[in-house]
Amino acid sequence: MKVLITGIDGYSGWPLALHLLSRGHDVAGIDNLVTRKRVQEVGSWSATPIPPIQRRLAAVKEVLGKDLRFYKGDLCDWEFVRHVLETERPDSIVHLAEQRSAPYSMIDVHHAVTTQVENLTGTLHLLYAIKEIVPDAHLVKMGTMGEYGTPNTDIPEGFFEVEFHGRKDYLPFPRQANSWYHWSKVFDSGDVMLASKIFHLRATDVMQGVIYGVRTPEITDDRLLTRFDFDETWGTALNRFIAQAVLGLPITPYGKGEQKRGFLALEDSMQSLRLAVENPAAAGEYRVFNQFDAAYSVKELAERVAKIATELGLNPTIEHPADPRVEAEQHYYNPIHEHLPRLGYRRTRELDDVMREIFHDLIRYRRRLVARQHVVIPTVNWRVPDSRPLLDTRNAPATAPTPAPPAGTTGPSSANTTA
Amino acid sequence: MKVLITGIDGYSGWPLALHLLSRGHDVAGIDNLVTRKRVQEVGSWSATPIPPIQRRLAAVKEVLGKDLRFYKGDLCDWEFVRHVLETERPDSIVHLAEQRSAPYSMIDVHHAVTTQVENLTGTLHLLYAIKEIVPDAHLVKMGTMGEYGTPNTDIPEGFFEVEFHGRKDYLPFPRQANSWYHWSKVFDSGDVMLASKIFHLRATDVMQGVIYGVRTPEITDDRLLTRFDFDETWGTALNRFIAQAVLGLPITPYGKGEQKRGFLALEDSMQSLRLAVENPAAAGEYRVFNQFDAAYSVKELAERVAKIATELGLNPTIEHPADPRVEAEQHYYNPIHEHLPRLGYRRTRELDDVMREIFHDLIRYRRRLVARQHVVIPTVNWRVPDSRPLLDTRNAPATAPTPAPPAGTTGPSSANTTA
Repeated sequence: MKVLITGIDGYSGWPLALHLLSRGHDVAGIDNLVTRKRVQEVGSWSATPIPPIQRRLAAVKEVLGKDLRFYKGDLCDWEFVRHVLETERPDSIVHLAEQRSAPYSMIDVHHAVTTQVENLTGTLHLLYAIKEIVPDAHLVKMGTMGEYGTPNTDIPEGFFEVEFHGRKDYLPFPRQANSWYHWSKVFDSGDVMLASKIFHLRATDVMQGVIYGVRTPEITDDRLLTRFDFDETWGTALNRFIAQAVLGLPITPYGKGEQKRGFLALEDSMQSLRLAVENPAAAGEYRVFNQFDAAYSVKELAERVAKIATELGLNPTIEHPADPRVEAEQHYYNPIHEHLPRLGYRRTRELDDVMREIFHDLIRYRRRLVARQHVVIPTVNWRVPDSRPLLDTRNAPATAPTPAPPAGTTGPSSANTTA
Repeated sequence: MKVLITGIDGYSGWPLALHLLSRGHDVAGIDNLVTRKRVQEVGSWSATPIPPIQRRLAAVKEVLGKDLRFYKGDLCDWEFVRHVLETERPDSIVHLAEQRSAPYSMIDVHHAVTTQVENLTGTLHLLYAIKEIVPDAHLVKMGTMGEYGTPNTDIPEGFFEVEFHGRKDYLPFPRQANSWYHWSKVFDSGDVMLASKIFHLRATDVMQGVIYGVRTPEITDDRLLTRFDFDETWGTALNRFIAQAVLGLPITPYGKGEQKRGFLALEDSMQSLRLAVENPAAAGEYRVFNQFDAAYSVKELAERVAKIATELGLNPTIEHPADPRVEAEQHYYNPIHEHLPRLGYRRTRELDDVMREIFHDLIRYRRRLVARQHVVIPTVNWRVPDSRPLLDTRNAPATAPTPAPPAGTTGPSSANTTA
């Protein structure tokens, strides 16, 4: 199958390309390489060294013996999007090219606008280009479980039977996003839903949990590694906790850390996306897959990280930074995920095993963590009195003495930064 | 009360300014005057002559004896938004400054992007400027009943009790918009909901029906008239039907015209917005008002227009232009609207009376309709075989011979163009 991946230079895009290539698919990719720059902007880098894109592509050729076609450009450039679709005429498009950080979107008004405008514009351009050039192609769009928030009910896969005042309908499940970024993903889902109706688009919207891990079976050479972000803006809570443990710093879940999120191993995420690609939606069908394996609280993650760090002789400690308003964050969390298992999905990885792999790689690249150590020291100035999580923070007084953070590193500690 | 109206040069913004001034409020307004240009772009103009903004303001001074402060600029310009809020420090902001045409958003990919990007950016800028400069101000945002679509249940005012798999929660009612424009309004609602949570914003989201009418009691001089659009892109179905009847052209509801929408007289819409302004939401409260008085189908509107045209001796005819795929469009439609009546709202106008007023004004300005007659002749090329309403139309063959329309006039016939 001919597959086009948008965001191929990213955390998920890169291992997906390797996975699809190894399964015999013909793969091309788009990226504007902007995440590399934005991670630098907040003073950080990937713990795993990421070669320039041309060297990554050369490594694919050398190690896997495969050609991976690459187009550098931006989905916000309509002519570029048209050009790539006309050249490639893919059967399937996996759309991962989005500003993916909730904390980045919360830095200030400009980051809020950038996040929503970029994500929406790129998605609309893709939808129209598919309609005009490859109307039968299947769009697999990366959503996030964060679109649903944490309702006090089960979370269905996109749609559910509503009964209200004695009448019934089958409707989209309510969305309650908690950051400008998460709303941008809700907005994209709305646009894709409309396109499936009016353009007869084939669409799969994958509501994914937080992905963890840095390796997949296809990563057999260090030049094929995917990125591993560990700063407050671009790294997940789990990534930061492991980096803290490797650096001998306290592991720092904020507050009580009772909020639960769904998680998924990188390898199993690739399996899920591949199953979506290989089993396309029908013309005009908009289907939603919830995609995660297990739910953990931030506190539980911190404890599991500490346990494995102890196994490895690292003497971890856990600290709970001052929290001006500790809320009861215990909540019900039971998303349904049945569609992917019906397509043959089965879980292959366990959190503890993958964490051991991550520790192994981070210990190898410890010098890269040390060189950017300041990005994992908690800057707790992301809450203000009488506020809730995911608050814009510029006017908030720091509640504990912290080193001056580089521009843009303030922001909430969110388990689902990468989504 | 100090009120700032965004979009003050528009169909609703202008009479709202007059209404609030006459009630003793202190009013200022923002507009980029772009709707004037965009109506020209599709080859049309307002049936009522709209003087340049400076002459409108001078007429307010002369006729009402009131000062109306005006700021020309764009909500997409962050520094402009900050400047106005710092200068005005309003108690209440009524946000009407949006690209408001569903057909305009459906013209092509660029109009889709423009609609969503402009509407979202303007709203985000307002939200942050309120937070930074006037955190206690009350935002009254114009939404649209079109956000909800036409579910087979009652439509609550924004939120409802959900029961799913035996558990309950109180959640946002599902949104199912039917154009890029309508989705942009859903997106704005999401952002305002989040801002009320994280910025403790006072917010009222007014889901309005289609507004009809061209006069309010404060319009006592022709220089104070509000605009009346009658072309396919900017005019509502009702506006076009009346213009057709005045011109002696057939009234042309497309297809069966069974789709129902909620409607509201301009004067009662102003009453609703004023009640929202005078009864602000609490800090951190996001409340949703459904705002309409009666639901009519497009077919019913056409018949009522014909009846009144006959009273006026106009010999109207109704035609149903060829419809490549006539769908069963009958559906349940019962939105709840109880919040505004609780604030003292009561209906003051009836559709037939307001239609007589509109006929009266359009007959006076008949020469302006004649001069732009081509914009009300139906261009039925907005459907393609096997499609649904609100379809992008560029590749669709015309199914009936029509004069070449000016650029941008293709688009769906939507009862809720103005929203």
